[in-house]
Amino acid sequence: MKRIIDRSQKRGKADIIIQNGQIADVFNLRWRQGDVVVADGKIIAISKPNEFDAEEIIDAGGKYIVPGFIDAHIHIESSMLAPKQFNRIMLPHGVTAVVTDPHEIANVAGKAGLEFMLKDIEDIEMDIYYMLPSSVPGTSFENAGAVLTVEDLAEFINRDAVLGLAEVMDFPAVLNGEEGMLAKLKLAQDAGMIIDGHCAGLTSAQIRGYRAAGILTDHECVSAEEALDRVEQGMYVLIREGSAAKNLKAILPAVTLTNARRFAFCTDDKHLDELIEQGSINYAVTLAIAEGMDPLLAIQLASLNAAECYRLQNKGAVAAGYDADFLLVDSLQTMKALAVWKNGRKVAENGAMLTPMPEKSIVEPSILQSMHLPKLSAKDLGLPMKGNKANVMQVIPDQLITKRMKSEVDVVDGQFMPCTKKDLLKLAVVERHHHIGTKAAAIVHGIGIQSGAVATTIAHDSHNAIVVGTNDDDMLVALNALQEMQGGLVVVNEGQVMASLGLPIGGIMTDCTAEEANAELRKLHEALHIIHPTLDYHLFLTLSFLALPVIPDIKLTDTGLFDVTQFKHIPVEICDADE
Amino acid sequence: MKRIIDRSQKRGKADIIIQNGQIADVFNLRWRQGDVVVADGKIIAISKPNEFDAEEIIDAGGKYIVPGFIDAHIHIESSMLAPKQFNRIMLPHGVTAVVTDPHEIANVAGKAGLEFMLKDIEDIEMDIYYMLPSSVPGTSFENAGAVLTVEDLAEFINRDAVLGLAEVMDFPAVLNGEEGMLAKLKLAQDAGMIIDGHCAGLTSAQIRGYRAAGILTDHECVSAEEALDRVEQGMYVLIREGSAAKNLKAILPAVTLTNARRFAFCTDDKHLDELIEQGSINYAVTLAIAEGMDPLLAIQLASLNAAECYRLQNKGAVAAGYDADFLLVDSLQTMKALAVWKNGRKVAENGAMLTPMPEKSIVEPSILQSMHLPKLSAKDLGLPMKGNKANVMQVIPDQLITKRMKSEVDVVDGQFMPCTKKDLLKLAVVERHHHIGTKAAAIVHGIGIQSGAVATTIAHDSHNAIVVGTNDDDMLVALNALQEMQGGLVVVNEGQVMASLGLPIGGIMTDCTAEEANAELRKLHEALHIIHPTLDYHLFLTLSFLALPVIPDIKLTDTGLFDVTQFKHIPVEICDADE
Repeated sequence: MKRIIDRSQKRGKADIIIQNGQIADVFNLRWRQGDVVVADGKIIAISKPNEFDAEEIIDAGGKYIVPGFIDAHIHIESSMLAPKQFNRIMLPHGVTAVVTDPHEIANVAGKAGLEFMLKDIEDIEMDIYYMLPSSVPGTSFENAGAVLTVEDLAEFINRDAVLGLAEVMDFPAVLNGEEGMLAKLKLAQDAGMIIDGHCAGLTSAQIRGYRAAGILTDHECVSAEEALDRVEQGMYVLIREGSAAKNLKAILPAVTLTNARRFAFCTDDKHLDELIEQGSINYAVTLAIAEGMDPLLAIQLASLNAAECYRLQNKGAVAAGYDADFLLVDSLQTMKALAVWKNGRKVAENGAMLTPMPEKSIVEPSILQSMHLPKLSAKDLGLPMKGNKANVMQVIPDQLITKRMKSEVDVVDGQFMPCTKKDLLKLAVVERHHHIGTKAAAIVHGIGIQSGAVATTIAHDSHNAIVVGTNDDDMLVALNALQEMQGGLVVVNEGQVMASLGLPIGGIMTDCTAEEANAELRKLHEALHIIHPTLDYHLFLTLSFLALPVIPDIKLTDTGLFDVTQFKHIPVEICDADE
Repeated sequence: MKRIIDRSQKRGKADIIIQNGQIADVFNLRWRQGDVVVADGKIIAISKPNEFDAEEIIDAGGKYIVPGFIDAHIHIESSMLAPKQFNRIMLPHGVTAVVTDPHEIANVAGKAGLEFMLKDIEDIEMDIYYMLPSSVPGTSFENAGAVLTVEDLAEFINRDAVLGLAEVMDFPAVLNGEEGMLAKLKLAQDAGMIIDGHCAGLTSAQIRGYRAAGILTDHECVSAEEALDRVEQGMYVLIREGSAAKNLKAILPAVTLTNARRFAFCTDDKHLDELIEQGSINYAVTLAIAEGMDPLLAIQLASLNAAECYRLQNKGAVAAGYDADFLLVDSLQTMKALAVWKNGRKVAENGAMLTPMPEKSIVEPSILQSMHLPKLSAKDLGLPMKGNKANVMQVIPDQLITKRMKSEVDVVDGQFMPCTKKDLLKLAVVERHHHIGTKAAAIVHGIGIQSGAVATTIAHDSHNAIVVGTNDDDMLVALNALQEMQGGLVVVNEGQVMASLGLPIGGIMTDCTAEEANAELRKLHEALHIIHPTLDYHLFLTLSFLALPVIPDIKLTDTGLFDVTQFKHIPVEICDADE
């Protein structure tokens, strides 16, 4: 602190001066002319020209200097990258901080997963803050990898990077005041920390219960009306613009100069290819500006407001005393970062990191060996049927929900037989965490592959192995490939693995660089187009939600077909008596 | 929490419904129509009419319901009341929370003083939060009652009511990075707590040093220009409207809808009579509205903004999940509280508390026996002079500053002789904390009393005994009365105590009720008018700053006359050689 004070009072040279910039003043929403003076990772002054001396002087050439963007809610695991690699794709876009919920790795690996996430950020450039997952496991209708009790969470609540309790999604538990849930809420409240909400579809009256529980944020608003209701009830609205859920345009009309402080941006889930291409919060800012929002206001949502919501001291502004996290842009329309400074160090330029590639993540063996599938033969994937009437899961491409339909299906030798013509394929989920050996098969419509099989260990929230196929042999090859790779994504055709991406970190994250992973993803997409020539949706994403038994209408877990609307398992076959 | 969630979901009756109010929505700056539903001290809903059932239903008759006001910076000791009595004069005005710096009691009684302040709030209705005094003692040019080191402060930093480090006023120590000061700043920073500033007259360039030190607030702005500079540099501006310093009108032009979130209101120091009559932050709100500010915006500054600045979770709004701290008013112009609810309980109505008078404060004996004056005779107050030229302290009524003047004074038998005609009186300061016996006398112009003496143990910041008089005998009577009362205020004439107010709590606070103390104060004022018939300024207040050796130009401490501009002691007498 002494050095920074010294430099601020012109005792000794500063480190860097960015001269001649137009600096976003997010407090007054105006552009300030001046020099940004940096020392020891802090902004020590916005000064008149030549007021300070520094080791390095950079001419901004009249371009814009804006505070580093903050993603108020993301699951890093959705990028399939380890945090230290995720760091390297976000910084070039000017995203200098994220608040992440390590819900996925926690479901796979519990406390060890949290430890890994905390360990992996130790030497990175960007700020990654964690909210502690509140719902591990997600439900009791499946076998997950881990359980996080309130005692487990308590071990983490005082860790440096931890800001509070992650999105509370089990709304019946909250609204009914269930003991385990209350204990977690109380843990965060007593620590004076933030509690994130997940208020998808909650009514205004239900929100009262969330507020009574001390829940402060909602990133699930889909309309301006919902957003205004949340703000009026004292919540922060995190405007989501991710890969699947895109709510920005719908919510933006709710934001006024008066209430803007209660809004920030987030992505929630965004895929690797889009993160690399578009970035995250920088992209939300450009969208908001394109929708007519004052650029300075959009920048404020993306910086100061998120920092205030999560109480990130000295973050979110380009002003004296703030951390020197900012970017240089020449167009507010594209918000493309010409250069990005993090803690006063130029870390990225023209879309590329300037810092050396870090060593691979150090991952505990138990997390690297997360695959414990049973020994399977093709016969084990059979789906015996007496009649030919079945409850079929109708997939809606790129959506989390499914529909329940009743169909007549092909049955041969007492077994369901997939039919590509009717697009009635076999879906199977196999427990993979604790060698329990549970597995279940069902019938799915709407996937559309013409041959082969597709499998993944990214299957929310329990991340068991899920496979869809036109025949049992290819499905088996796919599952075996997953076991071999210790999890990942795979496309199989005619008995051969066509393409794959290993995700050895808990079966959900790669230990590769973003570029390497993205190259593999492209090969996977090519392979998918071979077995599904007219593919026009995100098959892996869609597949990854077919085992999530909290989203209607029906899903498949390792313990069987699950009717979310009735909240109970149902049989695949429809007996005459059932009708 | 369970009960509150239950009630919010209409399981069981709520406690209170205030029907048919116009509710201030400080997030959107608009009035909401509806019922305020309260359970277990929390607002559980803003509902439509008759949506909830409750034990008690109150008709607001279309009047305004606004969040409880928060004083962002005050020294409770300035009211001369113990916190639990202070509580009883603020709540009837709708001030439900204050952030206070117990700087005065800390200077007298150190850690024991802090413990007393924390203890005294245990059973009160309002929220009193503490910032830990950063400058005890204020200077090394006098003998104070106590020293608070960083180790001392560390013992208090995690106490429930403590929010951070109080106004950092020793700007040379900050800007020069002095070790002791840095340690205190670091203590607060490491705890992730707020650091208040005191930036009186600091230049924009000096503010950078304060920001580098992590200092977040300033309540010393006197102009819109200064205020905007602070906001631009990332600080919160606490707009002060107290008894002596009145900055609201000057600062208000700086506040816009855009930057308003960085402004709150405070009083800093406000006297008992004015607190009783006007209140504090409620009064600032009415002034701001009279100056043309949107009433809802003024209310927002007085509630949500202060809560955000000090991270008072669930304070500062009338909305679901917030603490049920609010008031009912029928005129936004007067902002007079018809009734006040604190934690869902109606605590005041029509200007009077509804709760029973609490027991007297429990005060540690060492604090109750803080007076340790030396045994004095009138001779001890003599001011020997060889010639008749003297450095005279020119008092400017109601101001903290003095001027240094050179005068010819009356000298009889080698002793300075006060002269009421020339208004050259004797001022003395006597150490009273540790029986050190230090004392000093000087000559003062501008006080104007025609006879007798006036003395007090409220003398910033060290609170030694200070006395001004027209003759040594009355001065001695006054000092003896202070010793007898264990501190307080006293007016003496012709050897008799005319009026007095004992302040047995550290010599700066009474253990009486506000009404009792105020009655004594009135008698003191009457007595003052007898010895000073044309009195038109606040004599006790003015006197209380004559020993503060950080405000120019010259002051008197127990160790002698002090020239603040040269930062050194000077003699009273001017020898010919000096000229």
